[in-house]
Amino acid sequence: MRCEVVAIGTELLLGQIVDTNSSWIGEQLALSGIDCHWHTRVGDNHRRMVDVLRLALDRNDAVIVCGGLGPTQDDITREAVAEVMGVELETDHVVLDRIVSMFGSRGREMAASNARQADVPVGAAVMDRQPGTAPGLICPVTVDGTAKVIYAVPGVPYEMTELVTCCVMPDLRARAGASSVILSRTLRTWGMAESTLAEVLAPRVDSLEAAGNPTIAFLASGIEGIKVRVTAKAPTEAAATRLIDAEEAEVRVVLGDLVFGVDDETMEHSVQHLLAQRRLTLGIAESLTGGLIGARFTAVPGASAVFRGSLVTYSSEVKRDLLDLGPGPVVSEEAAMAMAAAARTMLGADVGIAATGVAGPEPQEGQKPGTVWFGIDMGALGDGEPEATLVRLPGDRDRVRQFAAISLLALLRQKLLASP
Amino acid sequence: MRCEVVAIGTELLLGQIVDTNSSWIGEQLALSGIDCHWHTRVGDNHRRMVDVLRLALDRNDAVIVCGGLGPTQDDITREAVAEVMGVELETDHVVLDRIVSMFGSRGREMAASNARQADVPVGAAVMDRQPGTAPGLICPVTVDGTAKVIYAVPGVPYEMTELVTCCVMPDLRARAGASSVILSRTLRTWGMAESTLAEVLAPRVDSLEAAGNPTIAFLASGIEGIKVRVTAKAPTEAAATRLIDAEEAEVRVVLGDLVFGVDDETMEHSVQHLLAQRRLTLGIAESLTGGLIGARFTAVPGASAVFRGSLVTYSSEVKRDLLDLGPGPVVSEEAAMAMAAAARTMLGADVGIAATGVAGPEPQEGQKPGTVWFGIDMGALGDGEPEATLVRLPGDRDRVRQFAAISLLALLRQKLLASP
Repeated sequence: MRCEVVAIGTELLLGQIVDTNSSWIGEQLALSGIDCHWHTRVGDNHRRMVDVLRLALDRNDAVIVCGGLGPTQDDITREAVAEVMGVELETDHVVLDRIVSMFGSRGREMAASNARQADVPVGAAVMDRQPGTAPGLICPVTVDGTAKVIYAVPGVPYEMTELVTCCVMPDLRARAGASSVILSRTLRTWGMAESTLAEVLAPRVDSLEAAGNPTIAFLASGIEGIKVRVTAKAPTEAAATRLIDAEEAEVRVVLGDLVFGVDDETMEHSVQHLLAQRRLTLGIAESLTGGLIGARFTAVPGASAVFRGSLVTYSSEVKRDLLDLGPGPVVSEEAAMAMAAAARTMLGADVGIAATGVAGPEPQEGQKPGTVWFGIDMGALGDGEPEATLVRLPGDRDRVRQFAAISLLALLRQKLLASP
Repeated sequence: MRCEVVAIGTELLLGQIVDTNSSWIGEQLALSGIDCHWHTRVGDNHRRMVDVLRLALDRNDAVIVCGGLGPTQDDITREAVAEVMGVELETDHVVLDRIVSMFGSRGREMAASNARQADVPVGAAVMDRQPGTAPGLICPVTVDGTAKVIYAVPGVPYEMTELVTCCVMPDLRARAGASSVILSRTLRTWGMAESTLAEVLAPRVDSLEAAGNPTIAFLASGIEGIKVRVTAKAPTEAAATRLIDAEEAEVRVVLGDLVFGVDDETMEHSVQHLLAQRRLTLGIAESLTGGLIGARFTAVPGASAVFRGSLVTYSSEVKRDLLDLGPGPVVSEEAAMAMAAAARTMLGADVGIAATGVAGPEPQEGQKPGTVWFGIDMGALGDGEPEATLVRLPGDRDRVRQFAAISLLALLRQKLLASP
């Protein structure tokens, strides 16, 4: 069973609205094991809508068309679907009654234009549910002797999700005689380029290729690292989960600690978890990141159990006055070590980390943008001395700052993993 | 001139990533007066990519294809475009050198697979800029004797936006022999609901409606306030700019200080500008925001001229130890005032601001999530006493924190505007 998603609306083409509906529908189709090879967006133009629907019916068994069912003149999905079906529109009195009573219950008068929403192509079935004034339609179409179907749902997200969940997917699954489930799990990695990751995992990818299930895909996510996604198809959810569990174990053998999280878990989740496990608290001293590291760390609920605070010593004078830094350069090994030590002692934390560097666009102290020193003071866990690390980060001001934040957290993660 | 946007990637079809690239490109095309009637998404499948590109070339003069230029096996846009052009791929040594030196400058080894990214269809031109390892390609194609073009850009958003802005749009506009220019300017507002804004600006909107040029549109942008966009079409850029200038002046008469910035100017731009104008420095004390206010403020280049630093006193003990806060509750008027004063004095700043509150999801000190106290100490500019303001912010943890950050900056902006 193959299904295309068609999103209707000139505002989507003009970029005035981001089309999140197609993505959401795509995910539902994938989870039901229904192939979706194309998403198409087309504006509120009758001729082009008809052409897009015909092409979609040619190359698929089913089409979900989303949007263009409203009351205004530019809502013409009803007319386009009717032309593709080769039928007329007629008023559906069940739908009309629903719309009238919907306005009545809100104490509002129904505008004449809303009556258009009850126009339904002859032969189309109206969906049982109707969360808004637009009905969902199940429209049978015969293409070269083959029975196919168009589902028309409104573009308002909460109406669309209800109708797709309750009416479209069950109908589609029944037509597909669906007997399989597709599940995905994302392993998030840091510290290896996408190409290298692909190389070290090539044996896994090759060994999976013959069976084609599960599969592995790579996804570069910029400052959030590289994602490795394992997808499996099976008759039941439990069986798909078992396939993913087994493949995750294989991937983890190869990648080890490069995997810092699963699905939505960020680097700060991982660091927070490691600190909590070891009953350690964290203090930060930040310069070029301006508070970003503290902000990321505290985005995770529960941060208060391990996070003491951050000293954002942005100006050089504040570094010297507040942290008691010497007269040397502030983008330096010494400064990073002193900042980490000050973060630990002044904030009363077990571990102190620090970042000082040049975000750009201008150089500082003769150093190029992207030059960043990290400091880590492991306190009682370490050998008594803070450590410093120099990195050169790519990109503009924003990327250098973002990279610095996640890189320092990644460095702390390694230290914590290496500590008992 | 008509251009289709084609987004490549199975992960888009599966709903694992929302395709924001197509929307953004659609907006750029609209602003240049280039028609865009279709957006298409297709997976990493050679046959289907070729078919989608051929169809797009049939019904358009140009195609922007986005994604599938990475180093891994499933990145096959190069191959698909070459087949549509009817040519082979060959290594482009300029691109290869760029990639090698990009790895070199980061001190990393280039994987063999990255060399694939230098494979370019014979006859394609490589774009001047190359923000990542994937080059942008300008690929001429002749369809039924008509010269058309495919632009291939990477799917990584920051690479895509740079290449589309600097290389694709100028080339497209030149091919279109663009005879009219469409320009937009966005006035960013804070402090008035969208419906109220629409009401006070209704006379402007009505008076423009007859001529239809320029136009005004409203765009709710959540924690970034409401945007008012003025769009004008004219034979030349200078003429369009004049139309926008005139309308901006009218809108500003109505909205006054509600407008805090233009286009990409954020609230922190405005505050930084006002501080610099008055030769004042700023110190911050943050609790629930965890560093977010400092991070936002320092995102703007030049922050170092006015920003001293931020004391992120996240745990209550740090507040008491470092800021010398009394034993009372930390989400309180007194705490906010004391934090603002400490930010000013400890960081040696002219002005101190502070935020303390409950981000959630759990209540704190018996206070509900969203309860936030702001403190402002204007130092020598004020009457000698810090002031505190209580707000109740809506939304989940992330929104409460984001709202707190921009709301406090907006409050400081008002204070600065009111000060001599």
